[in-house]
Amino acid sequence: MQDTCPTAQGEQSIFFINGYPCKNPTEINAQDFKSTKLTVAGDTDNYLQSNVTMLTASEFPGLNTLGLSVSRTDLERDGSVPLHSHPRSSELLFVVSGVVFAGFVDTNDKIFQTVLRKGDVFVFPKGLLHFCLSGGFERATALSFYNSQSPGVVNIGGVFGIDQERIVNITRSLVTDRDEL
Amino acid sequence: MQDTCPTAQGEQSIFFINGYPCKNPTEINAQDFKSTKLTVAGDTDNYLQSNVTMLTASEFPGLNTLGLSVSRTDLERDGSVPLHSHPRSSELLFVVSGVVFAGFVDTNDKIFQTVLRKGDVFVFPKGLLHFCLSGGFERATALSFYNSQSPGVVNIGGVFGIDQERIVNITRSLVTDRDEL
Amino acid sequence: MQDTCPTAQGEQSIFFINGYPCKNPTEINAQDFKSTKLTVAGDTDNYLQSNVTMLTASEFPGLNTLGLSVSRTDLERDGSVPLHSHPRSSELLFVVSGVVFAGFVDTNDKIFQTVLRKGDVFVFPKGLLHFCLSGGFERATALSFYNSQSPGVVNIGGVFGIDQERIVNITRSLVTDRDEL
Amino acid sequence: MQDTCPTAQGEQSIFFINGYPCKNPTEINAQDFKSTKLTVAGDTDNYLQSNVTMLTASEFPGLNTLGLSVSRTDLERDGSVPLHSHPRSSELLFVVSGVVFAGFVDTNDKIFQTVLRKGDVFVFPKGLLHFCLSGGFERATALSFYNSQSPGVVNIGGVFGIDQERIVNITRSLVTDRDEL
Amino acid sequence: MQDTCPTAQGEQSIFFINGYPCKNPTEINAQDFKSTKLTVAGDTDNYLQSNVTMLTASEFPGLNTLGLSVSRTDLERDGSVPLHSHPRSSELLFVVSGVVFAGFVDTNDKIFQTVLRKGDVFVFPKGLLHFCLSGGFERATALSFYNSQSPGVVNIGGVFGIDQERIVNITRSLVTDRDEL
Amino acid sequence: MQDTCPTAQGEQSIFFINGYPCKNPTEINAQDFKSTKLTVAGDTDNYLQSNVTMLTASEFPGLNTLGLSVSRTDLERDGSVPLHSHPRSSELLFVVSGVVFAGFVDTNDKIFQTVLRKGDVFVFPKGLLHFCLSGGFERATALSFYNSQSPGVVNIGGVFGIDQERIVNITRSLVTDRDEL
Repeated sequence: MQDTCPTAQGEQSIFFINGYPCKNPTEINAQDFKSTKLTVAGDTDNYLQSNVTMLTASEFPGLNTLGLSVSRTDLERDGSVPLHSHPRSSELLFVVSGVVFAGFVDTNDKIFQTVLRKGDVFVFPKGLLHFCLSGGFERATALSFYNSQSPGVVNIGGVFGIDQERIVNITRSLVTDRDEL
Repeated sequence: MQDTCPTAQGEQSIFFINGYPCKNPTEINAQDFKSTKLTVAGDTDNYLQSNVTMLTASEFPGLNTLGLSVSRTDLERDGSVPLHSHPRSSELLFVVSGVVFAGFVDTNDKIFQTVLRKGDVFVFPKGLLHFCLSGGFERATALSFYNSQSPGVVNIGGVFGIDQERIVNITRSLVTDRDEL
Repeated sequence: MQDTCPTAQGEQSIFFINGYPCKNPTEINAQDFKSTKLTVAGDTDNYLQSNVTMLTASEFPGLNTLGLSVSRTDLERDGSVPLHSHPRSSELLFVVSGVVFAGFVDTNDKIFQTVLRKGDVFVFPKGLLHFCLSGGFERATALSFYNSQSPGVVNIGGVFGIDQERIVNITRSLVTDRDEL
Repeated sequence: MQDTCPTAQGEQSIFFINGYPCKNPTEINAQDFKSTKLTVAGDTDNYLQSNVTMLTASEFPGLNTLGLSVSRTDLERDGSVPLHSHPRSSELLFVVSGVVFAGFVDTNDKIFQTVLRKGDVFVFPKGLLHFCLSGGFERATALSFYNSQSPGVVNIGGVFGIDQERIVNITRSLVTDRDEL
Repeated sequence: MQDTCPTAQGEQSIFFINGYPCKNPTEINAQDFKSTKLTVAGDTDNYLQSNVTMLTASEFPGLNTLGLSVSRTDLERDGSVPLHSHPRSSELLFVVSGVVFAGFVDTNDKIFQTVLRKGDVFVFPKGLLHFCLSGGFERATALSFYNSQSPGVVNIGGVFGIDQERIVNITRSLVTDRDEL
Repeated sequence: MQDTCPTAQGEQSIFFINGYPCKNPTEINAQDFKSTKLTVAGDTDNYLQSNVTMLTASEFPGLNTLGLSVSRTDLERDGSVPLHSHPRSSELLFVVSGVVFAGFVDTNDKIFQTVLRKGDVFVFPKGLLHFCLSGGFERATALSFYNSQSPGVVNIGGVFGIDQERIVNITRSLVTDRDEL
């Protein structure tokens, strides 16, 4: 309903709305629409050997009310982002470097997967389970775009408690024959 | 963009669109907007001891373009509808008979669960994982409403293959202390 | 734009928005998503011999921002819910018990009506005039679902003042031949 | 999803969709986006002494997929457009000539009405009952705009059969004191 | 999500949202839905010899949350509203008096233009560049409707600084042969 | 209304809809959701010294109905993508390599601009004029994401005919002081 509405920050509110209130319009400037938070790789020193740095309207004020967001995914040689879904958006993945196995599962439990190299794009439909794995002998970096300012993450691992290993194994097992992709 | 648009049925098309084409407007009648398919319990003679009969715009022509759908869930004494999500809708559950444990997991992995008796309603937000279990000593029947003509089901069990037992166990384990609900 | 946003309650605000502000996120709990208000029949001791108990995001906090709502309709033996419309939603009616005559009028003044028994569902398209009457020898109860958190009711009777009898008669007259339905 | 999609006309289709199919894109021209059908007054020689000429995406091809439509209302000295609603749009009324009494009824049965003279505008919210009457000693002409390509008309008179006089009387009776407006 | 939500006015807020907060519901009255601001011609004593008086939800409180707005355009004999676009709405133009040349440019740089006389309507698709010029020997007045409560104006002239003459010339040059229109 | 709907290709249709018809569902495969068309730089041997390779639902079937699209921009040392707008989407720009000056003009003619280096992101609000220029001593490559499957391009240059030089100059002149950015 207006050009822009960068997220108001640093204020303690007692009034909550769906999404975020806006900055005072007189204080909006170009820096609200820029972020440098994706310039460095995230910390991949974890069980998954991966990191996803997400910029929603919370971390990147200029996105508020514009209907999109972005993330950077870093995968070590054996890194994975196991099965998860985004309840409020589709996702478009762009491979910046490395090789990535990516796939999604439709509501008929059919898997659509492929291998992606530098410059390839793939798309995950809204709300469906999907994953990406590093394809092998090097690190990989990908960029993801979402058509929601706050896509949310439904993490299957989350409800399994400590059983992260299993989720990774299941995710890996979906890639039945990499050579065919 | 028009009052109604009941799904055209029985035709073999070579032209596919998002959703369904409409019946010839001159042939629309009151029966298009009625369904009797929820009058009987579904077959619960299966591992889950449950059945969900879903009426989307595919099975219930009058729903086409109206933005809602409905299902009937029957649960045997130990029946369950394990963790799943709907990529295109929220869900409102109404308990017709019996006792039902119901819950959902938000994107912070926090579980919201409760016990529902006859006449109670509960709501599962769009795209989030949720479940329902029979609460004990009798069969239970519930009705669910969706704000999409085709909500879709993301079935975690689907990607696990034969491991349905595990999903049920995980789902059951979420109900940590029934007496507190 | 976020998982949930239960309606903030009990606060006197001087700031009004379209819809409702949210509870403090740290105070959200499972009870926000549950309601027991439909467990008992409404008071049908009135001229219409009917009662509609509506749960919108105002009465059922968890519905806020989720895009759906629900109501329970109780009809005495001669009860009726005369012609009305919902400016912001379609409606899906489920008959819990009894027999119900239900119908709607499209924008060409064509009437679509039928008789519904226990377990049957019927759908009223968005914004169109519709009605339901008890079908005869017993009380009837139905559940209605709406794809708006605040469907609103345009009550023709409202603009006629005291002339409720007439509206009921008109509504009844629409059911020209019950045996044919 | 594209710049324009003028309604395809003159073709007999066996395939029906919600809304209208588009013209062959190679045949679109400026005349698709223009209409002269509102240049002349409609025929007001009828009981209501009024005429509404409606241009939806059916009569004005260029409107297809653009989300708006327009109508011209002519009122004789005692003309009226009695209570009705539009299930799919709000309406903005502009008085071209004459004096018009206009009003709507909200979902609390509260009436908002006023008198409008040449150049005045008034707005009727989506799905609510509203009306307009000539204000007296001359003919009046108004233009209405809708934020739907096919707003639809729910005509209370339609369900009353021959009882048009009554609807007009009811509508007129809503204007309790013209001098106060 | 509610019938109406007239823009709250005259208050100094420290809380900003997308769009406008609503008036206190108890203070809403019929005058909120009426405006007389289009009854007089705007001041056309400027280089463009034109004036556009825009009524959005800011100037016309009743429009808030209803999804439409309106403007009046006055053109002197040589007046023009040069190339511009509305980022948030389509536009429907109605000629009240005079002769108007109107046109838009689609995303293939194809121009769709025509001449409009009293009572004619033309439609400009969302976000596309369009213009209107007086057609000659008299003043012209037109009314425009938008399917957004705040359509916004992207003014090419704005980024050219003082070079308004050039924009007018370019706009005029688009009307290559008026006699053919 | 369904998981996916890849654009049907290679068929000559006599039936046109808004957007694209879908492939036969039985023929959908993983390759529909992948594109390699952004792996190589576009041809920048032109006056602008730039190239934008756009993948909409037309060139990348899997995007159909998913609500997003993507493009690759290559800029030579003095390359520019002059002022333009997208009528149907916002845009999120990610700099893959090089230095980029980027900016947009809001509807108050205020310019928001900045300098972007590798890994930086910037966002252009829906329908507003924006631009990007190479920042100097090397080639630059950027990726853009759109929250529409067919954002469209309103090219100011298009309506100026041969006057591309002027548009570039105007665009360059907007970057008043690069050192301050």
